[in-house]
Amino acid sequence: MILIIFLLTLLTHSTSNASVVDFCVADLTSPQTPSGYPCKSSVTIDDFVFTNFKPGNTSNPFKSSLTPAFVHQFPAINGLGLSAARLDLGVGGVVPMHSHRGASELMIMVQGFITAGFISSDNSVFVKTLTKGDILVIPQGLLHFQFNAGKNKATAFLTLSSSNPGAQLVDFALFGNSLNSAFVEKTTFLDHAQVKKLKAVFGGSG
Amino acid sequence: MILIIFLLTLLTHSTSNASVVDFCVADLTSPQTPSGYPCKSSVTIDDFVFTNFKPGNTSNPFKSSLTPAFVHQFPAINGLGLSAARLDLGVGGVVPMHSHRGASELMIMVQGFITAGFISSDNSVFVKTLTKGDILVIPQGLLHFQFNAGKNKATAFLTLSSSNPGAQLVDFALFGNSLNSAFVEKTTFLDHAQVKKLKAVFGGSG
Amino acid sequence: MILIIFLLTLLTHSTSNASVVDFCVADLTSPQTPSGYPCKSSVTIDDFVFTNFKPGNTSNPFKSSLTPAFVHQFPAINGLGLSAARLDLGVGGVVPMHSHRGASELMIMVQGFITAGFISSDNSVFVKTLTKGDILVIPQGLLHFQFNAGKNKATAFLTLSSSNPGAQLVDFALFGNSLNSAFVEKTTFLDHAQVKKLKAVFGGSG
Amino acid sequence: MILIIFLLTLLTHSTSNASVVDFCVADLTSPQTPSGYPCKSSVTIDDFVFTNFKPGNTSNPFKSSLTPAFVHQFPAINGLGLSAARLDLGVGGVVPMHSHRGASELMIMVQGFITAGFISSDNSVFVKTLTKGDILVIPQGLLHFQFNAGKNKATAFLTLSSSNPGAQLVDFALFGNSLNSAFVEKTTFLDHAQVKKLKAVFGGSG
Amino acid sequence: MILIIFLLTLLTHSTSNASVVDFCVADLTSPQTPSGYPCKSSVTIDDFVFTNFKPGNTSNPFKSSLTPAFVHQFPAINGLGLSAARLDLGVGGVVPMHSHRGASELMIMVQGFITAGFISSDNSVFVKTLTKGDILVIPQGLLHFQFNAGKNKATAFLTLSSSNPGAQLVDFALFGNSLNSAFVEKTTFLDHAQVKKLKAVFGGSG
Amino acid sequence: MILIIFLLTLLTHSTSNASVVDFCVADLTSPQTPSGYPCKSSVTIDDFVFTNFKPGNTSNPFKSSLTPAFVHQFPAINGLGLSAARLDLGVGGVVPMHSHRGASELMIMVQGFITAGFISSDNSVFVKTLTKGDILVIPQGLLHFQFNAGKNKATAFLTLSSSNPGAQLVDFALFGNSLNSAFVEKTTFLDHAQVKKLKAVFGGSG
Repeated sequence: MILIIFLLTLLTHSTSNASVVDFCVADLTSPQTPSGYPCKSSVTIDDFVFTNFKPGNTSNPFKSSLTPAFVHQFPAINGLGLSAARLDLGVGGVVPMHSHRGASELMIMVQGFITAGFISSDNSVFVKTLTKGDILVIPQGLLHFQFNAGKNKATAFLTLSSSNPGAQLVDFALFGNSLNSAFVEKTTFLDHAQVKKLKAVFGGSG
Repeated sequence: MILIIFLLTLLTHSTSNASVVDFCVADLTSPQTPSGYPCKSSVTIDDFVFTNFKPGNTSNPFKSSLTPAFVHQFPAINGLGLSAARLDLGVGGVVPMHSHRGASELMIMVQGFITAGFISSDNSVFVKTLTKGDILVIPQGLLHFQFNAGKNKATAFLTLSSSNPGAQLVDFALFGNSLNSAFVEKTTFLDHAQVKKLKAVFGGSG
Repeated sequence: MILIIFLLTLLTHSTSNASVVDFCVADLTSPQTPSGYPCKSSVTIDDFVFTNFKPGNTSNPFKSSLTPAFVHQFPAINGLGLSAARLDLGVGGVVPMHSHRGASELMIMVQGFITAGFISSDNSVFVKTLTKGDILVIPQGLLHFQFNAGKNKATAFLTLSSSNPGAQLVDFALFGNSLNSAFVEKTTFLDHAQVKKLKAVFGGSG
Repeated sequence: MILIIFLLTLLTHSTSNASVVDFCVADLTSPQTPSGYPCKSSVTIDDFVFTNFKPGNTSNPFKSSLTPAFVHQFPAINGLGLSAARLDLGVGGVVPMHSHRGASELMIMVQGFITAGFISSDNSVFVKTLTKGDILVIPQGLLHFQFNAGKNKATAFLTLSSSNPGAQLVDFALFGNSLNSAFVEKTTFLDHAQVKKLKAVFGGSG
Repeated sequence: MILIIFLLTLLTHSTSNASVVDFCVADLTSPQTPSGYPCKSSVTIDDFVFTNFKPGNTSNPFKSSLTPAFVHQFPAINGLGLSAARLDLGVGGVVPMHSHRGASELMIMVQGFITAGFISSDNSVFVKTLTKGDILVIPQGLLHFQFNAGKNKATAFLTLSSSNPGAQLVDFALFGNSLNSAFVEKTTFLDHAQVKKLKAVFGGSG
Repeated sequence: MILIIFLLTLLTHSTSNASVVDFCVADLTSPQTPSGYPCKSSVTIDDFVFTNFKPGNTSNPFKSSLTPAFVHQFPAINGLGLSAARLDLGVGGVVPMHSHRGASELMIMVQGFITAGFISSDNSVFVKTLTKGDILVIPQGLLHFQFNAGKNKATAFLTLSSSNPGAQLVDFALFGNSLNSAFVEKTTFLDHAQVKKLKAVFGGSG
């Protein structure tokens, strides 16, 4: 019995608040810092479990769905350099060309067939059709895409090397905001009609 | 046509060998450095795909199996700060108490029921039984365990925040090597008979 | 005089090879590692001076020129987390939409007028016309562009937070390589004719 | 005299609050972030001196004492990646098997004889008896232990590569909290009686 | 049109507050952390443009002027690991011997002739006279200096690998504060008269 | 017995070469990289023990001695972000004004009295006389000094937050090499006679 008391003494200074060092569950109500959110002062096991990693609705034009477990959905990963997302692709489903500014990605196949690819800075093309048992790694910040290559729905689990990886879709960046059409044309060499057509599709102005 | 030539000129200096910057597929035959292995000079799409993320054999005493996609199995993740492993637990299967010195872990449930837990530095206990749709995060370096909590086999995909996360099993460290039994007893307060019994089970000497 | 001897004694162990710690001029003939190139064993002041930061030729379709001082041109910056480039824009000159996977950028205006912009992950547009005395910061990995907004040539000095920042031009990635046109169309929603037209312009196949 | 004014002008913008950049003495009353505590706004030399690096009381069951100078005792080391602790071992004293999740450790011998060891991830055993003039390095996150190997008291100074290194004692984690005994047995292969006995010693429940 | 709604759905969780991840414009009114200032919640393009990168007044004893664009002048660079400064040297102008504790530096020549040098830890001297078209790299933390080597004014743009690089001038540290003169003499071997003379020049006491 | 075989199977892939991940004992015969030396392939406990942390000879003009355990003396600390040095000061002994470009420092008092101080970037002075039981922290890259403040010899153990911290002594940098005396005078405002005198003392030329 005496050992308890001793250990408490031995550890008392070094471990008061020690759990705040082991992890830093995000207090999403406080302003972020360059290293992430400030830590919540009190946590339970439920902070460490994300319970919504489930198929999303693919009844949309892209026939695809992304269910993120990033820091805003899963505050316990704050500062730990990891996140996850579930990708569901209906038949014909697609994830448009995009990049993650701050994270590499592992795509772990769960079911179906997905053709995925990325382009490196020296403009080499890396593309392959993947199935259950395969993992593809996509290095940080490179443009990449995925589409369903099979006759049934397809699912993959994505994991990323940041708790807040961001995502920039090329179409969304070019056509889904107020960026001046003339600027888009000048810096992409797309035709005027093409830009206007996609601005309409993606709801952009300018 | 002329744009091709221009772009090659524009990019020529900055992109020669640029792909070596986007990624660094490990040359496992060269000595490691503190930041990982030196890079292979020539790569193809097959370097970026791991094709063996499949169930392992759980016909063993632990009734469990771990299929790693760490840097030694999947050299393309070298330097990218990410890895994965597939965990299969037969009925009654267990992953003994262990820690990863250099990585936090996400456990993404795929099928079945797994009870998992970790202990923090201030000695708080975090335990929960998880099922499909759940993700548990285990902060870096803390002791944790998993066991099958259901009546059927269970599977989870693990991802870790290091390309070479290591793993230290407590039993293996205490009983599976030449560490002097007297030292084990002195530093763990286990009884002599207990240490000797487990040394025999885990094949340790000393 | 005796102090010399003493100091040599005092410092002898700690400073043998110390200059290798202060800096690590790249040996470009050795394979890279995730942290950069191995270090050259012998250096002089000339290793630390880049002498070609001069206007490039803007007589090309983009009417622009980029003179990089990245690690391949300036090996002394290896491992120091910094690089530079000189941007010259003729009248009507443009730097097409692109991103740097691993670096933030400062654009320091030297002469003329440049309209520059970037799009953030939440799809906000940040655009402004800049002139001498202005610096624009472009956060890491985001799509951005520059074009000459004046009636005379324009120049800016760029500095980036990596010794090997890479650059991915959207047009080059979509149209300047062997990426299957059908994949481009499917993942960008561009029309078939548009893709084929730009594939021809940028020299892509597929 | 005029130089004073000039220098103040020269430095005025860049150094207002500059000391906040040189260091970041922890404001322990504010919530932590993943990079450490926010900085105190006003500091003196006394913030940078820890005055209690003295022998602790070894009249306890372990006959050992640890005096930490971690960020909670010594706020000036916040963000600097360093901390220290003083270890005193009475005759027969022991530091039980433990690990530091986020730090490597140097053990600098001061007096007496200490047997120390660590076990690596590939289960190799590294053990040696050390005396004055010796330093042992224990790589991050590995299980290690120390015990007095002499006939007199022993002392070592420990330094760690984190300002808040944490410490997880195996016995404390297994037996000193509410972790279900059945879970302990299942994941460590210890006998039921052994677990119950040590739960009693270390004050655990469950 | 429907694509707009879909994309908003697709991205909604992952991008709420995403711009806070792309960048972290400093809220200079909040306390700093080891990783920088907390982020402002609302930003515009004007936050990302520094408009005062202009020649300073060189009518001072050093005939030099430094115009910093560090985090306190340019809050948008917070956390991005980059800053800039404009250096103007009148005829005979000098930047005294100094170091930056936390940053390497690129000196990009704009006009005139500047002799610049640094000394490495193994006490090698690296000095050269530079002109337009040259860049000098000064590795982190080393003592260095610059002076006008020509007959006209000279200008260079400096960029540094930290958003808050600090600067420590040797003269200012030794002679421009309350550091006891006897301590200066003892630790620099300068003569008493020399120390007293420069204490007077730089406004130091003690 | 069967558990041995199982565990070997369980761990076999993940732990082949795992010890290379736990640590990276420097192979000093290979070229360094920005992250440190390549790793030795085979190690023993003796690699992890430095046996020469003993008093140096203080019979020299500075009456001081520094015994470093940096990466060149203690290759096992390569990549671990820690090193140590023993400081012995005879009566009147001094460590001249210096800085460490890449490391913060803890000075742990062992015996005697040492006056130590550092100057921050905003030119504040932090000085105190320390004795046994005290630790002083000196933030990275700042000028600092130590001298014996007592009537007997004094000893401190230094630990630094880098395995290869470097050290730049102001006197050595200004007077102990070939740096042109005119440059020294111009950039330090020291008198010509003073510079020449110290160049002679420290063995410099130029």
